[in-house]
Amino acid sequence: MHLLRRFAQGQLRLARIEAFSDGVFAIVVTLLVLELKVPSLQDPHSVSELGHQLLELLPKFLSWLISFIIVCKFWLNHHHILGLAKHADYGMVWLNSIFLMGQSFIPFPTAMMGEYATNALAVSAFGVVMAVNTLLFIALHSYILRRLIKPELVDAQVPHIIRKSCVGVFSYLVGVAAAWVGVYGAFVVYLLTSLFFIVPPTRRGAAQPGATGSA
Amino acid sequence: MHLLRRFAQGQLRLARIEAFSDGVFAIVVTLLVLELKVPSLQDPHSVSELGHQLLELLPKFLSWLISFIIVCKFWLNHHHILGLAKHADYGMVWLNSIFLMGQSFIPFPTAMMGEYATNALAVSAFGVVMAVNTLLFIALHSYILRRLIKPELVDAQVPHIIRKSCVGVFSYLVGVAAAWVGVYGAFVVYLLTSLFFIVPPTRRGAAQPGATGSA
Amino acid sequence: MHLLRRFAQGQLRLARIEAFSDGVFAIVVTLLVLELKVPSLQDPHSVSELGHQLLELLPKFLSWLISFIIVCKFWLNHHHILGLAKHADYGMVWLNSIFLMGQSFIPFPTAMMGEYATNALAVSAFGVVMAVNTLLFIALHSYILRRLIKPELVDAQVPHIIRKSCVGVFSYLVGVAAAWVGVYGAFVVYLLTSLFFIVPPTRRGAAQPGATGSA
Amino acid sequence: MHLLRRFAQGQLRLARIEAFSDGVFAIVVTLLVLELKVPSLQDPHSVSELGHQLLELLPKFLSWLISFIIVCKFWLNHHHILGLAKHADYGMVWLNSIFLMGQSFIPFPTAMMGEYATNALAVSAFGVVMAVNTLLFIALHSYILRRLIKPELVDAQVPHIIRKSCVGVFSYLVGVAAAWVGVYGAFVVYLLTSLFFIVPPTRRGAAQPGATGSA
Repeated sequence: MHLLRRFAQGQLRLARIEAFSDGVFAIVVTLLVLELKVPSLQDPHSVSELGHQLLELLPKFLSWLISFIIVCKFWLNHHHILGLAKHADYGMVWLNSIFLMGQSFIPFPTAMMGEYATNALAVSAFGVVMAVNTLLFIALHSYILRRLIKPELVDAQVPHIIRKSCVGVFSYLVGVAAAWVGVYGAFVVYLLTSLFFIVPPTRRGAAQPGATGSA
Repeated sequence: MHLLRRFAQGQLRLARIEAFSDGVFAIVVTLLVLELKVPSLQDPHSVSELGHQLLELLPKFLSWLISFIIVCKFWLNHHHILGLAKHADYGMVWLNSIFLMGQSFIPFPTAMMGEYATNALAVSAFGVVMAVNTLLFIALHSYILRRLIKPELVDAQVPHIIRKSCVGVFSYLVGVAAAWVGVYGAFVVYLLTSLFFIVPPTRRGAAQPGATGSA
Repeated sequence: MHLLRRFAQGQLRLARIEAFSDGVFAIVVTLLVLELKVPSLQDPHSVSELGHQLLELLPKFLSWLISFIIVCKFWLNHHHILGLAKHADYGMVWLNSIFLMGQSFIPFPTAMMGEYATNALAVSAFGVVMAVNTLLFIALHSYILRRLIKPELVDAQVPHIIRKSCVGVFSYLVGVAAAWVGVYGAFVVYLLTSLFFIVPPTRRGAAQPGATGSA
Repeated sequence: MHLLRRFAQGQLRLARIEAFSDGVFAIVVTLLVLELKVPSLQDPHSVSELGHQLLELLPKFLSWLISFIIVCKFWLNHHHILGLAKHADYGMVWLNSIFLMGQSFIPFPTAMMGEYATNALAVSAFGVVMAVNTLLFIALHSYILRRLIKPELVDAQVPHIIRKSCVGVFSYLVGVAAAWVGVYGAFVVYLLTSLFFIVPPTRRGAAQPGATGSA
């Protein structure tokens, strides 16, 4: 308890936390493309060989696409929840750092799913990482809501955003299970999960900087 | 319709959108150089072998140069159109994210064109990606003009910038077609397109933060 | 002496120094994941082979985790000490640049320790690099305290933060020594060092933007 | 002439130009470490083999060190000259983009010099790239001094900073020539050039945000 109270101290500038976070998000999102390696051809002039090789890259393109959308959504929601905080304390900084650690890890399962798209372990690992990331986001979100929220926003907050995040966790875990039945099912679940969470919520006041659920 | 209206909600801070976008642009532009791999020599001391190998890298240098100019131009025009918006809503954030997805993809076709400069498919794919990126830019631009423009700028806007972007799409597609006749023609078209769009427009008031067409 | 005085000149904007530093921190922390390479499988469909290979990556995951926490802690403390300065001079900019050079070097020993987790030289090199980084941080911290501190913060500063950093140096060097007895001991020392320094200090006024020791 | 006048139009926000530039600098400086590849060992447990291999990396460490210092110096001087401008126009944005193109290219000659430290072409190419970068910096600097300088700073500007940059160009070219006599001479010249330019100038008013010559 005494230890926990220490983390609730300190007033850190939100601007630098946002700058650091934006940097990590921007790099993660851009590094994803490095997994798309130019195929090596036996005949460099052959159009048909290159076309064939590019088709084989399809699972990598798909993995890249899904991860890109998911990280953008995390960025958008991160933007939202940091806008709720009146300042930052140690606890929030460390929860934020652990959350960013999860984000920066995303290129690894993305590359693994793209490389071994027919391997149930590779495809389900992707969902596990995304579920853990969503849980880390929920932890950060809850911490801000409970301890750091701006007084004028207390009443405007509705708990359904965190509920929506929990649905996201569940949805990723459905994808994890689906991977063991058939990998294509998992791809579909992952894609639908990300697309579902793009849709903004119905009602929202202008005072809130906006979010679309965190999954 | 109801779904579309949801995206028109929310007030997001433009500053963080710019920070995230600037991060992506800066990383894309800098990652391009990673495709320039140091050649491996049989005799590490041989000046002539290294010179010969560097000459062979010429198509890669050229691809790098063209992409660098194009991404800088996109950055400049992005800077311009975000300066027109009074705030950001969900729709704009997602159009922006999809546009950035297109930008972050650029290192892949750049590397492919540099690697297989005599392969019509590789060279035309580059033009297709650039045309799609320009279309994504037009979508973002139109959205801001129609829904988010600052009231004081409404009259100052002339539609010729979007027309110029459309010319850019056309010009890239000419390059795509040229690639199937002869790859050198396509290189020339891509280079001219980027150089043509560097030239700023003729008349512009001081109130507008400036752009040079988006192609 | 005369030369040193020249470095004490100049008034540089702290904002751009922070932006540059945040960029470097964010990239270092995200590049760490590039060392986690997707294993190559003989049978792409084999779940057991992939599972086995992922287990073999365990030392790499652990190295990544330790480095991530350490760099985040450096970022947090960097945030703290730049908040103490009233402006920047040449000397501070160069000390900051050399400190960032140390930070940007971290992916190399991290990768080496992950690759050769049973090699005493690889494991001890990691500790040496971290000890040197902590010393560079102490140099920057002392410079700011002695020359650039905001007048209103002079009395609020307690020397125990630098003492805590010195404990960090010592602790990393214990890990270096431990590596030559047994590499697992070194891993434990590195992990404990980073976790120990996460805990915020006991007393701290609201005027100070907060830090947790620099090791 | 008419074309040139078009580039002198437009008012772009310096803040976003700085953010984009800082991003590029930070990434360039951090990507340099990616060239330091962990050596592959025949016996992963062998301390002596790893030690031997690390010694062989010495030219790479040295190239990395020299480039890091040089890019930091460019960043510092870039910081300085953008502080002189009252706003940005198209011409400045494009000169800045071309300058950043030169900066983002630096990892390539750095890697090449590190890889082939005994190859005169590789070592001299490094100096040529640095000389060209310095010339691009001089172009940007001159453009700002002639067209965009803040009125209150006109008298405070002394031409010796550009002269110092010119000395830098000359100094790198001496290194280029030295490479053909003996590569170690070139390394020494490059290192001395970067160290010489670290030293701040003697007299400078507080109104100027400070620079140390641009070479």
